Amino acid sequence: MKVVINGYGVFVGVKNGVVSIRNGEGEKQIPPGNLRQIAIASGGVAVSSSFLRLASENGIDVIVLNSNGSLSGIFRPILKKANVKVRKEQYKAQNDERGIFLAKCFVKGKIMNQYYLLKSLSKNRKQKLDECYELKIIAENVEKCTSQQELIQIEAKAAEMYWRGISNFYDIDRRRKRYDDPDAINMALNYGYSILMSQVMLAVDSTNLDPFAGFLHNENPRRPALVVDLMEEFRQQVVDRAVFKVNPEEKNGFLTKDARKEIIAEIKRRLETKVTFNNRKLPLEYHIYLQARRIERFLLGKEKYNPFILR
Amino acid sequence: MKVVINGYGVFVGVKNGVVSIRNGEGEKQIPPGNLRQIAIASGGVAVSSSFLRLASENGIDVIVLNSNGSLSGIFRPILKKANVKVRKEQYKAQNDERGIFLAKCFVKGKIMNQYYLLKSLSKNRKQKLDECYELKIIAENVEKCTSQQELIQIEAKAAEMYWRGISNFYDIDRRRKRYDDPDAINMALNYGYSILMSQVMLAVDSTNLDPFAGFLHNENPRRPALVVDLMEEFRQQVVDRAVFKVNPEEKNGFLTKDARKEIIAEIKRRLETKVTFNNRKLPLEYHIYLQARRIERFLLGKEKYNPFILR
Repeated sequence: MKVVINGYGVFVGVKNGVVSIRNGEGEKQIPPGNLRQIAIASGGVAVSSSFLRLASENGIDVIVLNSNGSLSGIFRPILKKANVKVRKEQYKAQNDERGIFLAKCFVKGKIMNQYYLLKSLSKNRKQKLDECYELKIIAENVEKCTSQQELIQIEAKAAEMYWRGISNFYDIDRRRKRYDDPDAINMALNYGYSILMSQVMLAVDSTNLDPFAGFLHNENPRRPALVVDLMEEFRQQVVDRAVFKVNPEEKNGFLTKDARKEIIAEIKRRLETKVTFNNRKLPLEYHIYLQARRIERFLLGKEKYNPFILR
Repeated sequence: MKVVINGYGVFVGVKNGVVSIRNGEGEKQIPPGNLRQIAIASGGVAVSSSFLRLASENGIDVIVLNSNGSLSGIFRPILKKANVKVRKEQYKAQNDERGIFLAKCFVKGKIMNQYYLLKSLSKNRKQKLDECYELKIIAENVEKCTSQQELIQIEAKAAEMYWRGISNFYDIDRRRKRYDDPDAINMALNYGYSILMSQVMLAVDSTNLDPFAGFLHNENPRRPALVVDLMEEFRQQVVDRAVFKVNPEEKNGFLTKDARKEIIAEIKRRLETKVTFNNRKLPLEYHIYLQARRIERFLLGKEKYNPFILR
């Protein structure tokens, strides 16, 4: 069971060995064995040290979110159990054919998701889009790539095509990339990607993988390359679709408060939407966890890996 | 600045962007930039979600301790910055001469600390101890070892000699190793080692090293081998000395409450004691951090490594 706590004046403590969540109106008691995660989504919540100790003993992740829904921090035992073997395979794979295979999957997943998103937009509005079919051709060329470098070039080409296609529907110019650029859709996308990043981080963190050792993106002590890699498969499905639906507004170079609220709500809705991938119908959020797990199993030679693509 | 919070009814929150620690009697305000760590050492302390967010933004570690002073958990951003290069060197070193060199240091450090502890006991009581000189000879043989296996054997031989020597002073039989064995000194040592382990964990965690990839101890997903490795250099200096000083009592197979309190207090005193190693006079606790950092720098070819030994 996962619990989200939102609201001022909530206190999380322990009563007779049971987790007690109470506010002025009432109390909810949950046996610790039934809890996997408590997410604290607002200010004005207090947690007791006894609860934190109990959470640690029972493997309950206590997550604190920022006001935009992105991850602020997590409380847990200092060293989570770790299987060093997985990380060793991951580092080896960076230099063998498995690494380039995964990098191709991430790029192919992204481009195909761009293709399907553009296709659905053009269908709904009865427009035929050249960019859409171009994207499909680019996606097919991913197979021929033999290096990270080529993949990054092909990704850039696809991105250009995608945003050209999108600009037929929305007033957007992806060349203006700064967060503070007064382009509401752009700002909303970057806002959304930071929320998605938290989700992908939690997923990668639930495995034994090293989040900083990537296959498509270069290593950087400040950027978890593998998280950024895996994000590629989910950008369009989780964030772009949500942002285009909301059609956000900005004021004086900032997204309006309403726009931010709507984006968070819409992304949350997307994450909770059940979709079918690999023959399993599950909330999109779960598929993120499964993809991270599949990277791990692929590196151990236990499972095939396919990029997450939704029509 | 590090703050330890101990006592019921303490609330840690945020007021005007400043950390506020208050109880019924008063309030202490600390700018977040001045704080590096808050350790919560008792039950009955509450922290607000706003404080946790502030801590995360400002890189303040929020640590929760168990009643015995060992680490329960830590709150912080999910992914600490990581230098993958260090871990890659660490894994490589497991199979080259650097690994066996470090393993030798850990064993040599432990045996020499056993030697000096035994020597000081025998001097104080004007007893001459054969075991003491045997230990020195064993320590000299460490140099000749060429495998982990040999080192583990030599460590066992030294341990036997050490405990035989110690038993001249204290009623102890290290063959009875179970935690619940009604041997007060034995129980106290194991109790103390669990506290030391938390300290070494924090030290290793402050580096880019993988705590689960060791050089002396074998890999195990449930035991951080590198932490157990580095602990060897500090067991006698931090725990054994403290326990022998306290001379703890047990009752019905448990350490008495007073004994536990005294052990925690004495270990804390040891950790705070300034000692000179590598030409630096610092609290023993800091030397643990420095040794972890030195393993990292040694693996990167930037510094020599010497075991932590105190006369």
